Amino acid sequence: MLKEQFDNLRAGSVLVHNITNYVTVNDVANAILACGASPIMSDEPEDVEDITSICSALNINIGTLNHRSIEAMYAAGRRAGELGHKILLDPVGAGASRLRTETARGLMNKIRFDVIRGNISEIRTIATGSGTTRGVDADVADAITEHNVDEGVDFVRSIAAETGCIIAVTGAIDLVSDGKRCFVIRNGRPEMSRITGTGCQLSGITAAFLAANPQTPLEATAAAVCAMGLAGEIGWSRMQEGDGNSTYRNRIIDAICNMDGQQLEEGAKYEIR
Amino acid sequence: MLKEQFDNLRAGSVLVHNITNYVTVNDVANAILACGASPIMSDEPEDVEDITSICSALNINIGTLNHRSIEAMYAAGRRAGELGHKILLDPVGAGASRLRTETARGLMNKIRFDVIRGNISEIRTIATGSGTTRGVDADVADAITEHNVDEGVDFVRSIAAETGCIIAVTGAIDLVSDGKRCFVIRNGRPEMSRITGTGCQLSGITAAFLAANPQTPLEATAAAVCAMGLAGEIGWSRMQEGDGNSTYRNRIIDAICNMDGQQLEEGAKYEIR
Amino acid sequence: MLKEQFDNLRAGSVLVHNITNYVTVNDVANAILACGASPIMSDEPEDVEDITSICSALNINIGTLNHRSIEAMYAAGRRAGELGHKILLDPVGAGASRLRTETARGLMNKIRFDVIRGNISEIRTIATGSGTTRGVDADVADAITEHNVDEGVDFVRSIAAETGCIIAVTGAIDLVSDGKRCFVIRNGRPEMSRITGTGCQLSGITAAFLAANPQTPLEATAAAVCAMGLAGEIGWSRMQEGDGNSTYRNRIIDAICNMDGQQLEEGAKYEIR
Repeated sequence: MLKEQFDNLRAGSVLVHNITNYVTVNDVANAILACGASPIMSDEPEDVEDITSICSALNINIGTLNHRSIEAMYAAGRRAGELGHKILLDPVGAGASRLRTETARGLMNKIRFDVIRGNISEIRTIATGSGTTRGVDADVADAITEHNVDEGVDFVRSIAAETGCIIAVTGAIDLVSDGKRCFVIRNGRPEMSRITGTGCQLSGITAAFLAANPQTPLEATAAAVCAMGLAGEIGWSRMQEGDGNSTYRNRIIDAICNMDGQQLEEGAKYEIR
Repeated sequence: MLKEQFDNLRAGSVLVHNITNYVTVNDVANAILACGASPIMSDEPEDVEDITSICSALNINIGTLNHRSIEAMYAAGRRAGELGHKILLDPVGAGASRLRTETARGLMNKIRFDVIRGNISEIRTIATGSGTTRGVDADVADAITEHNVDEGVDFVRSIAAETGCIIAVTGAIDLVSDGKRCFVIRNGRPEMSRITGTGCQLSGITAAFLAANPQTPLEATAAAVCAMGLAGEIGWSRMQEGDGNSTYRNRIIDAICNMDGQQLEEGAKYEIR
Repeated sequence: MLKEQFDNLRAGSVLVHNITNYVTVNDVANAILACGASPIMSDEPEDVEDITSICSALNINIGTLNHRSIEAMYAAGRRAGELGHKILLDPVGAGASRLRTETARGLMNKIRFDVIRGNISEIRTIATGSGTTRGVDADVADAITEHNVDEGVDFVRSIAAETGCIIAVTGAIDLVSDGKRCFVIRNGRPEMSRITGTGCQLSGITAAFLAANPQTPLEATAAAVCAMGLAGEIGWSRMQEGDGNSTYRNRIIDAICNMDGQQLEEGAKYEIR
């Protein structure tokens, strides 16, 4: 099932508009290229409507938001919505500051997001209006593990139903739900949290998967989440003595670059509830 | 002939002021260091005149332009012009938005660029005022191949003559002309398009080559284009099983770092028309 | 002695707020993660007070300053000061422009920095109000070598005493003083200057070391400087035929990632004067 999602992406020529943070932007661009799509970045309000018009997906990431880029997020989101493009929100650090929380929630009020992807603390924050995060990392108390996965599934499913968006919560176990079905995904490596930007990269490639699979957004999102996790596993298997997080970063993007639908299908570890 | 261009760069201590996009800026900095020069980045209007004054080249790249950085581009360009510095324009995404097209053309009206480097769609746009681009990539219909290289040479030569700038169009075949002679360059690898920023890196090192070779700007530009393409070939030859675009990015910059004038002379593949 | 500094950092969960340049920000984030802490970046004035409040250290780097980020630096510095957080200034390019010099000195007037880390030219500039730099690199005439290390120690010690900050001057020989004692550190490799951002990375990890060792800021700073230099040595020892500055960048961060207190203790090369 996931094979087709990736095959469609590789077969097409998806262009993704990213309004994203300057910390991980280069890795986001290379990850999008690695999965067969093309990125373009623009965060000037006067520029974003034109740019998003030539794309088929919009990835909004609030990781280093400022008043100019926030204005650009609203403008691009409105235009992308008019054009029926796929739109994703990555509410980086929601819960860590008032501005981030309000921006994420304000965007949700004005823009019809197809997917919201974040860690559990960020998703809890945007769902409830308050929450605790450890900066851009999830609060340990919130983490979804084998012990609370049932509750996690219920939570993510309910948020998806309430918001009308596909919700993707990533962590030790990843959950992706459209309010009805929920993918429970067990790909990935804990060492991925020692690299900056794997979440941001996932948001970028999810936007690409969505655009290539407009009729199956839940499967497309799950495919992107599995692909990122699988890339983390493949990249880890190639680590050598003395390698660390910087090399691991390269190996993960390399693994996406070399992945195809068949490999994803075979390597994806998920159940649907 | 190209050997001397690179030897001069390695022998000097060129400082390049870059007003460039935040997507590929780190790779631009490392590429400039790799070829023996030093980079400095500044895009605050109040800062750029001082910064550009201590440099000998200015690299303006509109990849993630905003109103602040546009103002900085004009201010830096004016000051660099007064000081007789080498100035390069990389009109990233010209044709993809009104703001990018107008900014590129507005800068050309006010600043005496030594070199304009872009893909064929961007160059077509700035030459004619309209054009089509696929985001930051060239429109496939425009691509210069063996089948239309004669027309491409005529086109690039005419744009160079009209604008009074050296025009460098990079793609499968690269063309560099000052309006009289035209270098037709066949270095490089198609896989370079799967990495973000090889064009931006080329613009940065071209500015460095220009500053080190003030009397031979056409040869200096051609040397930079050949060096980048050759680095793409060398980097590719070092790729191993499982490597992808992220590792390839590192290997290309590594290859520039280890290159000298002799290797460039031997590896450059060009004809002059 | 330095072992304990690193062990404390690895044992804790330090969160560092960075207002830093967009050139090297990704490497700063990965270096902070590599040493066992977590980074968060925010430079919007309306966001920084909340963000810095959840952190325990603030790293201010003026490498690509603009009026918005300068305002954020003052706001975050004031708030971090109120909360008793560790605060570090990296005055990138002070001396290269009026705005950079004035910003560095203005921040020093308003914010109680624990550590100021820069190259010798930057430190000379902020100490005396004027100086010469070669962009973001030290002026060769200023470099601290074995021939003038005694004068260098006196200079750094006197600046530390005058400012009440720990001063860390990095170069061929690194000097770290609190106005009384001075660490003279001989770790590192000259090839580190061919990579962009090793200084910025050092500032980021120094902030992390400070937060993990609040009672021993001089030792914490010296430990960070030794760790970065030692990582440069380890990274260099892993370089292979054909590797260059881009791979070296990865290997240095990798070496930090794999380093522990014991390895630092054994590899650190310093004397205390």
